[in-house]
Amino acid sequence: MAEEFTASPLFERVERARRRKTKIKDTHITLAHGSGGKAMHELVEGLFLEYLKNPLLEMMEDQAVFEVGSTRLAFTTDSFVVDPIFFPGGDIGHLAVNGTVNDLAMSGARPLYLSAGFIIEEGFAVEDLKRILHSMRAAATEAGVQIVTGDTKVVEKGSADKVFINTAGIGIIEWPAQISATRASTGDKVILSGTIGDHGTTIMIARGELETEIQSDTAPLNRLVEGMLEEAASVASVDAIHCLRDPTRGGVATTLNEIALASEVCIQIYENRFPVREEVHGACEILGLDPLYVANEGKLVAIVAEEIAEPLLARMKKSRYGHNACIIGEVKAEPEGIVAMQTAFGGARIVDMLAGEQLPRIC
Amino acid sequence: MAEEFTASPLFERVERARRRKTKIKDTHITLAHGSGGKAMHELVEGLFLEYLKNPLLEMMEDQAVFEVGSTRLAFTTDSFVVDPIFFPGGDIGHLAVNGTVNDLAMSGARPLYLSAGFIIEEGFAVEDLKRILHSMRAAATEAGVQIVTGDTKVVEKGSADKVFINTAGIGIIEWPAQISATRASTGDKVILSGTIGDHGTTIMIARGELETEIQSDTAPLNRLVEGMLEEAASVASVDAIHCLRDPTRGGVATTLNEIALASEVCIQIYENRFPVREEVHGACEILGLDPLYVANEGKLVAIVAEEIAEPLLARMKKSRYGHNACIIGEVKAEPEGIVAMQTAFGGARIVDMLAGEQLPRIC
Repeated sequence: MAEEFTASPLFERVERARRRKTKIKDTHITLAHGSGGKAMHELVEGLFLEYLKNPLLEMMEDQAVFEVGSTRLAFTTDSFVVDPIFFPGGDIGHLAVNGTVNDLAMSGARPLYLSAGFIIEEGFAVEDLKRILHSMRAAATEAGVQIVTGDTKVVEKGSADKVFINTAGIGIIEWPAQISATRASTGDKVILSGTIGDHGTTIMIARGELETEIQSDTAPLNRLVEGMLEEAASVASVDAIHCLRDPTRGGVATTLNEIALASEVCIQIYENRFPVREEVHGACEILGLDPLYVANEGKLVAIVAEEIAEPLLARMKKSRYGHNACIIGEVKAEPEGIVAMQTAFGGARIVDMLAGEQLPRIC
Repeated sequence: MAEEFTASPLFERVERARRRKTKIKDTHITLAHGSGGKAMHELVEGLFLEYLKNPLLEMMEDQAVFEVGSTRLAFTTDSFVVDPIFFPGGDIGHLAVNGTVNDLAMSGARPLYLSAGFIIEEGFAVEDLKRILHSMRAAATEAGVQIVTGDTKVVEKGSADKVFINTAGIGIIEWPAQISATRASTGDKVILSGTIGDHGTTIMIARGELETEIQSDTAPLNRLVEGMLEEAASVASVDAIHCLRDPTRGGVATTLNEIALASEVCIQIYENRFPVREEVHGACEILGLDPLYVANEGKLVAIVAEEIAEPLLARMKKSRYGHNACIIGEVKAEPEGIVAMQTAFGGARIVDMLAGEQLPRIC
């Protein structure tokens, strides 16, 4: 009754990726393993995939897509350990709902139901828990999802830091979309839905003394994606939307690298096309961060057939969370697995995946 | 397209329960709020339900049941923070898979897909992670489920204790079963699938100096439940299975209290019918524990129509995880919301829900 959703060209690429065996060399887990970058990919591919392997997990998407009965579903999970738990523009509760809503939306799914698992440190203030629940309710209402099942664990003081929240989510894929990181093709356009670096910079600043106006961009992107699917269907076909990802940990640079590797293409981007808020730019300079590697919590990267790029962009600009959308690059055949950036000064450089650890507990 | 599965008599009882407003009086979270007992019910009903309310969450079952397309699905989550992470009979990996498999099975669902979210403390040994993943794979294989999506977070040393694992799961309900804690009816029989107290006692002993042969009972119960549904269908109807719950935190006493309250009935049990391993009995005496309140991780309580009780019991006894099954009591009309026990000495006493905290981080 339950069958995996299979699409053979995707599986061929996944097969090839599987043969590129990653090994984990470290003997102990470091913060870099949670960074979203290279070390995390080693951990996931070298260990988690190795032990738990099955065709759905091996797709290495941010959500699993399968059929139950004759319905295509998406299923995803994320744990949130952000520090501090309250920050300008949101809190751990917003992140926990929006993060899972967005992972579902990136498959073209309409998010329906969420679970919520709380791990709470003994002594945590009930008032703070109320504030978090208030945010979760607000975020769920905005996204149109319901939190339908949950779990609470309490650990002794010192065995966890305040509160960690896991959400998992189920969505239904109603469009005949085949969205996957393996589908970027030569000639495709790369669209970014808005400014980069807002969330990660906010968290870094919230940990220190700096005072700014920067806020996290935490937001549900499901309605933006719904509009994109509608537009693609009306201009050509939903199938013209090839890849969708939300560039969280590791930032846009890491997300584009994941796609370039999975699709075996080169992604060419242009530095001067990236929208970065002035305050974020300034804060990143002071903090020594590159906005390309800084986490976002309300942005997406779309790789789409050239023919739909302009109408899609126009549609995105009308949406609440897409009005700064822009085309930041295109897909080339070679060199495979590479993200190349034309710099503001006219030079060219390779943009690698995040190496090491940039910001622990960013989400 | 997605509609809640509604059954009006259940909803009436849920409505009544909702009117019995629980308030949380504490200003800070204590270990008791994670115990599975009274304080946890206050936290969940007084806070989580209050903020996140929706008809599915308000069912207060261990899983949400809803229709997507024309398919009935169950969805559940649990976080695991057990200490120690390795113990006789299993580890946190086994628990994380079996716990979610069992919560799905208790709705009559066939578990299909699991998610896994890891929160790892910096410095955790990769070898230990491998051992855990090995267990998760073994447990998933035995239960016939796949772990299809996951997430990894790493927190600084001292911000979590070794590793916490969240699993969420999706199952499909193929039988026309209407299993709910609200459906216990006068005349029903109460069946327990085996010995009690094995898991909780094992964990307590693993933390101390005592040496015994006791092992955790961690096990997947989905095939046991499948057999029960088949048997019920052949004798009468699957509808004759009224309630199914796995008595984890808070033990059998707490589970029976939840059912007595939700169904507005009295559950009458007999002390001398409870199977307790001799070693568990001895350890509980030394540790000052009552096995009725000690967590189980591979047992279920079933409340079923009298007509199917004996054939169901016979069928359960043939199953790997049901061969010590026995009838431990029956359902009476009054006094409502009460669990009454006839003691081994012929007296009678009320068995309350677990109050305070018995064993933190038992699962």
